[in-house]
Amino acid sequence: MPRNLHVHFLPALTTPDELADGVVVVIDVLRASTTIATALAAGATGVTACLEVEEARRRAEAFSRDEVRLGGERQCIKIAGFDLGNSPAEYTSEAVGGKTVLFTTTNGTRALLHCRLAAVVYVAGFVNAAATASAIKIRKQRDIHLLCAGTEGHISREDVLFAGCLVDRLAESELERNDSAELALAAWRACDQSNLAAELRVSRGGRNLLRNDMATDIALAARLDALDVVAEFEPESGTIRRM
Amino acid sequence: MPRNLHVHFLPALTTPDELADGVVVVIDVLRASTTIATALAAGATGVTACLEVEEARRRAEAFSRDEVRLGGERQCIKIAGFDLGNSPAEYTSEAVGGKTVLFTTTNGTRALLHCRLAAVVYVAGFVNAAATASAIKIRKQRDIHLLCAGTEGHISREDVLFAGCLVDRLAESELERNDSAELALAAWRACDQSNLAAELRVSRGGRNLLRNDMATDIALAARLDALDVVAEFEPESGTIRRM
Repeated sequence: MPRNLHVHFLPALTTPDELADGVVVVIDVLRASTTIATALAAGATGVTACLEVEEARRRAEAFSRDEVRLGGERQCIKIAGFDLGNSPAEYTSEAVGGKTVLFTTTNGTRALLHCRLAAVVYVAGFVNAAATASAIKIRKQRDIHLLCAGTEGHISREDVLFAGCLVDRLAESELERNDSAELALAAWRACDQSNLAAELRVSRGGRNLLRNDMATDIALAARLDALDVVAEFEPESGTIRRM
Repeated sequence: MPRNLHVHFLPALTTPDELADGVVVVIDVLRASTTIATALAAGATGVTACLEVEEARRRAEAFSRDEVRLGGERQCIKIAGFDLGNSPAEYTSEAVGGKTVLFTTTNGTRALLHCRLAAVVYVAGFVNAAATASAIKIRKQRDIHLLCAGTEGHISREDVLFAGCLVDRLAESELERNDSAELALAAWRACDQSNLAAELRVSRGGRNLLRNDMATDIALAARLDALDVVAEFEPESGTIRRM
């Protein structure tokens, strides 16, 4: 029975039903995927995805102050009263080691909630590409979905490029690809892989960060295979943990 | 003031308001764009896009039997009682010369109706790429939109490849491209342009046609620049005419 590898350029281009029982990789390269992988690599016990700011504040009440950190952004800016924004640079072991991060971000969280019926959900970006590809390969589910978060409802080239990178890494196995997977692979193979940061700077998400003076975050997101982290989302708790 | 070149991989990824006042190219390579350009090249006086089969039949009543031809498909198959299906091979000068074609097709017509607020709407595929690119270049509107019809709500690689081909042809002018335009261009530059028919066969639309034994239509759609036809849609009459 052939296995399927489907790329979706935006959550709106698929449905929770289509993702049901599959392996889903949620991709929000700039910056949620990168920040979550960085937080777990720095020793955070978990990152809980919250759709709304108020949900993060409410969930924080169940923890003692020392156990938890509030993190996230709206329109690239740290939320008032939160401990951390959405820059991977902030998620050091000093900041989040041993803590639960209650995390709210515009596009990534929405994409995660789209996967509530999936068998397995990973969160990945360039920083944990190799670890994630290895984790996918040992799964036996028939369908693999690479779900790009996009930016405010628009397709983001940086997410598609990373989807293409994963398609490339999975190419050794026999997989039936949809048209979007072929397009993502072509875009990845055509881009300057030796200077990923430059590729990310000209994407929608990258230009958005440059306008907000966050060029460092682009460089951090472009570190291919830098983190040996598989980030798995548990839909019941809404929490992403290191596998 | 910079001009914008935006590719949309599906009608659902944009809105009539976003297309308002722009130059829009509607792309449904397999097969509506190709068939419409072929019909106009064969001397049809116009091709009227009808959303529903019943609309085509009703509009036919305004013509004498000799002035009009009913054409179109549902799920790749000619509609019962129609004169012609959606294969470009059927649209010869004997069949449609001097006639109005009342045409209904699943994806292309829906895409055309999305453009009701645009300043100019062209219909194009590989067969009339050069003629369409030349027509776009002399327009002065600020926004150019390349609107891929897709197949039943899914992104079709053949439409994206042709959008990339047009982006390439327009590259000499100073245009701000959205991320999807960059992705389409990369896919076009990466594909085997010397054997476009092979590229189209492995796309969603191409596989669909092969299952229905319509390989000839793929070859006809792959004839880059074969027809010197600019096909312009008039939203008021719903009719596409040769410019």
